[in-house]
Amino acid sequence: MPDMTPDEFRKYGHRVVDWIADYGDRVGELPVRSQLAPGDVRGALPAHPPEHGESFDAVLADLDRVVLPGVTHWQHPSYFAYFPANASGPAILGDLLSSGLGVQGMLWATSPACTELEMVVVDWLAELLALPADFTHAGTGGGTIEDSASSASLVALLAARHRASGGEVERSGATGRQTVYVSSETHSSLEKAVRVAGIGADNMRVVGVDENLAMDAAVLDRAIVADVAAGAVPAMVCATVGTTATGAVDPVRAIGEVCRRHGVWLHVDAAYAGVAAVCPEFRELNDGVADYADSYVTDPHKWLLTNFDCSVFWVRDRGPLVGALSVLPEYLRNAATESGAVVDYRDWQIPLGRRFRALKLWSVLRWYGAAGLREHIRSDVESARRFAELVAADDRFETVAPPRLGLVCLRPRWERIAGVDAAAADELTARLLVELNDSGALYLSHAKVRGRTALRFCVGAPATRWRHVEAAWERIRAGVAELADS
Amino acid sequence: MPDMTPDEFRKYGHRVVDWIADYGDRVGELPVRSQLAPGDVRGALPAHPPEHGESFDAVLADLDRVVLPGVTHWQHPSYFAYFPANASGPAILGDLLSSGLGVQGMLWATSPACTELEMVVVDWLAELLALPADFTHAGTGGGTIEDSASSASLVALLAARHRASGGEVERSGATGRQTVYVSSETHSSLEKAVRVAGIGADNMRVVGVDENLAMDAAVLDRAIVADVAAGAVPAMVCATVGTTATGAVDPVRAIGEVCRRHGVWLHVDAAYAGVAAVCPEFRELNDGVADYADSYVTDPHKWLLTNFDCSVFWVRDRGPLVGALSVLPEYLRNAATESGAVVDYRDWQIPLGRRFRALKLWSVLRWYGAAGLREHIRSDVESARRFAELVAADDRFETVAPPRLGLVCLRPRWERIAGVDAAAADELTARLLVELNDSGALYLSHAKVRGRTALRFCVGAPATRWRHVEAAWERIRAGVAELADS
Repeated sequence: MPDMTPDEFRKYGHRVVDWIADYGDRVGELPVRSQLAPGDVRGALPAHPPEHGESFDAVLADLDRVVLPGVTHWQHPSYFAYFPANASGPAILGDLLSSGLGVQGMLWATSPACTELEMVVVDWLAELLALPADFTHAGTGGGTIEDSASSASLVALLAARHRASGGEVERSGATGRQTVYVSSETHSSLEKAVRVAGIGADNMRVVGVDENLAMDAAVLDRAIVADVAAGAVPAMVCATVGTTATGAVDPVRAIGEVCRRHGVWLHVDAAYAGVAAVCPEFRELNDGVADYADSYVTDPHKWLLTNFDCSVFWVRDRGPLVGALSVLPEYLRNAATESGAVVDYRDWQIPLGRRFRALKLWSVLRWYGAAGLREHIRSDVESARRFAELVAADDRFETVAPPRLGLVCLRPRWERIAGVDAAAADELTARLLVELNDSGALYLSHAKVRGRTALRFCVGAPATRWRHVEAAWERIRAGVAELADS
Repeated sequence: MPDMTPDEFRKYGHRVVDWIADYGDRVGELPVRSQLAPGDVRGALPAHPPEHGESFDAVLADLDRVVLPGVTHWQHPSYFAYFPANASGPAILGDLLSSGLGVQGMLWATSPACTELEMVVVDWLAELLALPADFTHAGTGGGTIEDSASSASLVALLAARHRASGGEVERSGATGRQTVYVSSETHSSLEKAVRVAGIGADNMRVVGVDENLAMDAAVLDRAIVADVAAGAVPAMVCATVGTTATGAVDPVRAIGEVCRRHGVWLHVDAAYAGVAAVCPEFRELNDGVADYADSYVTDPHKWLLTNFDCSVFWVRDRGPLVGALSVLPEYLRNAATESGAVVDYRDWQIPLGRRFRALKLWSVLRWYGAAGLREHIRSDVESARRFAELVAADDRFETVAPPRLGLVCLRPRWERIAGVDAAAADELTARLLVELNDSGALYLSHAKVRGRTALRFCVGAPATRWRHVEAAWERIRAGVAELADS
């Protein structure tokens, strides 16, 4: 069997490491967004798999020839779209160790270190973010690494559904009576979770937001009261700390009081913004979490230097979570599980199997230390603040929501610049976005904010420095001037 | 900010590559199953995260000191437990490239190559396994890489649920009327999926098996007829090609005929065995798949040399899958999606985000080629066949199910050896398992087969050669002799 020998692995491994180091050096010179059209990458690859093995050199050659032109570079210093997907040297190497060990940590017994290191690092992260001690493994709760905040919010919903029904849902199925509460700004993964869990989108109440685009707790309260009066069973409220469109923060404390009054599970989706709490000055974002949240998720793979996938999810009480997800067939029984002395993370997630993802988070937390993580967050927030100042100082632009952390939502004031109406202005903003992204010089995304099209500018790629933000601002200004002239 | 410089990344990257190469060389000398007790790893780590960054040398030192003793070595040549979790040089390097690029392929637009390379390699794999052309992206279907067969079976169920209800379930919620059909040998992930999807375990029919532990299609037919008569809506049947306990193969063709007659979605779970179809002589396992299966999953991360996670899932018609899982908020809208010319894999899975997992499968398929993959599978099957011969030749042992591919289920005939009854015999088998695994010399798992405790011996780790299988057999014999003496 033509296995890669240890010597070949060393040779090609060093070459791949060097390729990545070089990529980090030159990514800033590549177009941020791939310039290829649908089908270009597929068309450049053979239609059939090889009958005989090829050299790894051939893979590396095609990586440069075929793959790289089809890559949109999330690590580019001028990447400002969506939210960031941070990679970093220590995370890449931690993940490499995970691949090299090749262990599968479905049970404590199938690799104790895979489970226990994860327990340690999620406890560490809870401490770094000043999350409540109830969320650590020392108590009745605990954290785990999920692949994404989408999956974390789904398992939160499953735990909430379990608690609200006393486990009846897993036995008899959903009843169409449970209800879930989000705001109009909540991430789409919550609707996806509600659909997946068989609750149904019609049983998801979309609570209105206030002038800050934050959920109105009084409206939430009235919705729950009305539902209960009509015979519904409110199962979960999702509050968001840092919404996708604008970074808005729901009033977790006020929402939590409503949840407690009605006995409803409070899940907090802080996928993007949560990691900012490594800095004491941003912890006010989490006001109310310690007192009221039943579950909480934030993504080190967005903005905390840890390669995707690394979404950390905590619960205050692991009982309903394990109750919702544990199915124990004979072939997985083992003495450690039966002793009750261990955590089996298969019961905290949808998949059975799992990689040793804790290694990359461990590696990141140790390489940067708390001080380094704070510096990373502060640098991006400061860049975003200065960017928002530039926007505010130019009367051809406006920010459409208060800048939050690394995220600024803005729009050109086409009504003033070009004398057009709102619909035409939104079309011009959309066209501007296409032209900016087509240029390859920077990459932005967009949102609808109070019905109007806005540019989302999010500072967060590890390579981004102030000069890249400044250059992006000049590009945006120039793009507006060109469009205005035409 | 103390980012790892390119030079530091090269230095430590080379060191990690060398560590992994050395690990591959020495893993055979380590105890297969970790010898640590619950809490040992946690107890050896600091209770608090570091305030200041540390050198990567410190991480590597703790890797050897703390982590490695807590690892159960899935890549050990004497690993025979559960199913294998294959790692290989080209897969590790493909995954490393994925980490280094750090792209997030939720949409085609967010990295076209991430989507298109995946479309190509899952089409390649379909061809290598002789799966129907309907499963490729050339037609109405297509494949994708999920994190696990558990997740793949869940999304299959969501697609089936969608089709059976005309999308009504996503809107109004599960009704408690849909039913799902498995056998008593089906993997526990199906019950988990049924619970997650709000269908409820009570609506999962456990169809009996025949003398080969394969689902009885006639019993299935009667169950569906009875359910329909009672007003239920059969949504999905899961047939298994290679069950977890014994590798039994459900009669997909006969089951498919039943499904077609009743208009029920047929999902085929071939998580372990499916990859064996790279060899023409094992393709009979999939008889009926081409004609009847609506969806199919097999795991290159089990037995096809591709590091976890890499579970490949195909559907014949992507419509119901995307219908079940697509929620399109404003901030994800883009021209490519709206053109209908691209695949957005976020709609094929639970999570929104996704890594560039295609790189590792691409790397494996090219490095080994079809010929190399066949050699890998054949070598393990041949070892298992010879092992089963040794078992059959020793009248103190029996195989409790027909050996299948790399999997042999056996038990000592304690009734004959020690003159004990069935219950005592099962206890002795369980004790034998504990003693063998405690020795660190090999690692097996167990199953209940027709109510009796059996040892599961699965040949599949890439490092395993015949000499390791032979040594394991000597250990098992010696273990029985020692237990019989005591």
